[in-house]
Amino acid sequence: MNWLSKPVRGLLLDITGVLYNSGEGDGVAIASSIEAVKRLQASDLKIRFVSNESSNTRAKLAAKLGRLGFEIQEEQLFTPAPAAASYLRQHGLRPHLLVHPGVQDEFAEFDMTDPNCVVMGDAEREFTYQNLNTAFQLLIKLDRPQLITLGYGKYYMETDGLKLDVGAYAKALEYACDIQSLVIGKPNAEYFSAAVADMQLTIDETVMIGDDILSDIGGAQKAGLRGVQVRTGKWRPQWENHPIVTPDGIVDNLAEAVNLLLAQNAA
Amino acid sequence: MNWLSKPVRGLLLDITGVLYNSGEGDGVAIASSIEAVKRLQASDLKIRFVSNESSNTRAKLAAKLGRLGFEIQEEQLFTPAPAAASYLRQHGLRPHLLVHPGVQDEFAEFDMTDPNCVVMGDAEREFTYQNLNTAFQLLIKLDRPQLITLGYGKYYMETDGLKLDVGAYAKALEYACDIQSLVIGKPNAEYFSAAVADMQLTIDETVMIGDDILSDIGGAQKAGLRGVQVRTGKWRPQWENHPIVTPDGIVDNLAEAVNLLLAQNAA
Repeated sequence: MNWLSKPVRGLLLDITGVLYNSGEGDGVAIASSIEAVKRLQASDLKIRFVSNESSNTRAKLAAKLGRLGFEIQEEQLFTPAPAAASYLRQHGLRPHLLVHPGVQDEFAEFDMTDPNCVVMGDAEREFTYQNLNTAFQLLIKLDRPQLITLGYGKYYMETDGLKLDVGAYAKALEYACDIQSLVIGKPNAEYFSAAVADMQLTIDETVMIGDDILSDIGGAQKAGLRGVQVRTGKWRPQWENHPIVTPDGIVDNLAEAVNLLLAQNAA
Repeated sequence: MNWLSKPVRGLLLDITGVLYNSGEGDGVAIASSIEAVKRLQASDLKIRFVSNESSNTRAKLAAKLGRLGFEIQEEQLFTPAPAAASYLRQHGLRPHLLVHPGVQDEFAEFDMTDPNCVVMGDAEREFTYQNLNTAFQLLIKLDRPQLITLGYGKYYMETDGLKLDVGAYAKALEYACDIQSLVIGKPNAEYFSAAVADMQLTIDETVMIGDDILSDIGGAQKAGLRGVQVRTGKWRPQWENHPIVTPDGIVDNLAEAVNLLLAQNAA
């Protein structure tokens, strides 16, 4: 299906690899995406930025995107850490955190003295030998080990190359403990649906744009959305004949998608 | 089947968790196992020590076991690193090593300037954020990424607690790169069969004794051997109702197995 064959009233946008590439400091903006987001914000389209970013609180993420040149409201951001905190609260869980220091504030309310689950995000340099073994030792001694992950990505692009993402480390702990993770974030259909509902739109009216063919495009399609692949971020040429996922559209970058979409909506 | 219901002419013995527990320095010998190995070496039984130990060359491992009180010939040791080196040689491969410094000598012959595969053992403290990402970056850019692992264990016991083993880290790289490892070591049936053949015995005449229900007992049984579980090392009580593997015998430690076996052979 062509992604523009039905009307589009809302967009879900991935952040890393679509707006900017992560790396030292704030990372590097994809230049044409700054102008593209400006045009979207000035249009009638509703937007949510649906990310598995787990290195920052929403407030810090909005500020960081601001420094990179993107005008984004905190309320337009969808990230897994607040969703995980909500899950912990509902289930009376006490987490051991293996997360990036920048996102720990989202979990400030929890008692962590006697943890009964592990919450793992993209901890980046915190994925040390010691920290992985500490999380493992905690899980293996629980009667019902529970590993909650903020997203489940394979890898992501930093300015100095590809890096293993939280899903890879989750696989290590799952194998060692004979468990399955509870994934909060993309590619879970519930996560996409919640972002669509927050815009007060329907699945049919909404398009997801991302750089990860499995987590962004495949996940969105499972939720019933159209999924558009950008050729930026972690995109790889061989994905254009991917054995599992066929995007509803492929564009060079966010700017091309926005050009096509706004031209169609103006017609 | 009772493990003593057929004659036994040869034993395959796991090392870590059966002879000693690893940890700082040489680790700690399981006291009763020292005497048990002495009695075996003085008996008519043939023995091979079949280990996934990948932290030492065979020479260093024999020396280390000697310091712990075990009289074991280098020729009685079966370890994955020499088997992997033989595989690399046969297939003209140039490895990138993510292995313990103590075993690197087994790979001294190989050109590593332009690696076309990754060999990963239990690298212990070398499993750093940096080293895992370096191995990942190398694999993901290969046309046909090949990950060769020295064993595939979930975890093992050190004196300061359980530690993630090479299989867990392999799962991380497999997921990130969409590949399967080639496992050299237990639980591969070929590995057990080669050790039996080296004793010039048959599968029917041989018993495997180990502490890991999947890698030692399950693996040996798949190769057609009898597998006896010891209640030392990484053994866990719930394994006595394990959903997948039922050992042919369960003993408190190696000494009990040797007592039973030598009493039967003397009868």
